[in-house]
Amino acid sequence: MNDTIRLIQNHRSVREYLPREVSEEMIEEIVRSAQSAATSSFVQAYTVIAVRDPKIKWELAELSGNRHVETCSVALVFCADVRRMMEAAGAGDRGGELSNAELFIVATVDTALAAENAALAAESMGLGICFVGGIRNQIREVTRLLEIPRFVYPVFALTVGYPAERPEKKPRLPLEVVLHRNRYEPDRDVHIADYDQTVSAYYRARTEGKRTHGWSEYVARVLQAPRRPFMLDYLREQGFLEDTRGEPRQS
Amino acid sequence: MNDTIRLIQNHRSVREYLPREVSEEMIEEIVRSAQSAATSSFVQAYTVIAVRDPKIKWELAELSGNRHVETCSVALVFCADVRRMMEAAGAGDRGGELSNAELFIVATVDTALAAENAALAAESMGLGICFVGGIRNQIREVTRLLEIPRFVYPVFALTVGYPAERPEKKPRLPLEVVLHRNRYEPDRDVHIADYDQTVSAYYRARTEGKRTHGWSEYVARVLQAPRRPFMLDYLREQGFLEDTRGEPRQS
Repeated sequence: MNDTIRLIQNHRSVREYLPREVSEEMIEEIVRSAQSAATSSFVQAYTVIAVRDPKIKWELAELSGNRHVETCSVALVFCADVRRMMEAAGAGDRGGELSNAELFIVATVDTALAAENAALAAESMGLGICFVGGIRNQIREVTRLLEIPRFVYPVFALTVGYPAERPEKKPRLPLEVVLHRNRYEPDRDVHIADYDQTVSAYYRARTEGKRTHGWSEYVARVLQAPRRPFMLDYLREQGFLEDTRGEPRQS
Repeated sequence: MNDTIRLIQNHRSVREYLPREVSEEMIEEIVRSAQSAATSSFVQAYTVIAVRDPKIKWELAELSGNRHVETCSVALVFCADVRRMMEAAGAGDRGGELSNAELFIVATVDTALAAENAALAAESMGLGICFVGGIRNQIREVTRLLEIPRFVYPVFALTVGYPAERPEKKPRLPLEVVLHRNRYEPDRDVHIADYDQTVSAYYRARTEGKRTHGWSEYVARVLQAPRRPFMLDYLREQGFLEDTRGEPRQS
């Protein structure tokens, strides 16, 4: 196992940070690393908003329900961005025609690939990071706060800072459940029962027996009700998924 | 600059491979690395189909219009997967209610974060990789070929093999265009003009003057017409974006 694989496999989400600033040079190196990721058709459909202003960080922490957005040194808000390419292409007035489900996938994937590079670059410097999907909890307010225009949406924040904790690694699904061969193999689900035991033991040890649920029970709670049910309307307001506005089409 | 950042920033897409197989152990290490990525609410909403069967690789290459899907040692098809969690949660019959735009974002982002880890793990072993979004060109056929069930969709393939080429790095947008401070700053687009010159020089040098376009002209071509206009219908058939089926709602 080489150093990069060791780094990758040692990832853990860090939510407690030391009161020490990450330098501008480090932030730039992190974002340059993000930019080195592959990008669909070279469109580079993302923008990174580095939030250091304490008031804005505080507001983002409130809106996302994640205190570490305030206590981190910098919150990198990764935005899927098709505005820039439309402007550069002089295609702004055709946005409604172009901004379909496919372009939404392209922008969302480009953003996530870049962000994972950023996360690893930060961790390689000894920094701690945490992905915060919680900025989608009140996404309209976040959009207003950061003055995010049409054809852009904030996907998640990446909090970055010097770590003040080293949490345990969370056990992942068994490889044989996730890695299929030559075709999709649903029967591999059979190994989830063992994994439920592993996750249960992990939570029991970490919470002195207060939490004992396995993975299946955990995702059942996540799926109790539809999450963020406002998302489709919000995305339409931002100009995404424009092809969802008409009547459902026949294929 | 440490080794990991050097690796990240040296990424280039490799489409020519030596006729040498990547070992099973390497594939497993690559997918274990993928699994170490952050995952929204611990749902791990992805499946990796490792395609080595020459016939299936050939068909995937045909369907995607990318010859290197056939010539690589293994094509890792990264699928966004909410089927597994729904099954584990016993929520399969509530799929229509739960499978909204938010869950689509979660699954697509989880998949891309994992894939970028896989890409870097492979590159750290001296392998070459290329993301192939082209598997979405004929996505229904790919879905049938790989027997991909409802609530799962193939986002892209990652071709992996021993590299037989070392292409030049493609110049990225200037940092000042992508990295904003505290709020979205559209005025940074002003630096795109310089970048157009850089990209033009890059293509001119690589094609002996046959291609001379800048980035803006390039994305104008990409945006000439809506891409993959069947995507929304396809995603609905697979059970995604179920909230797009009704009348457009008022927010």
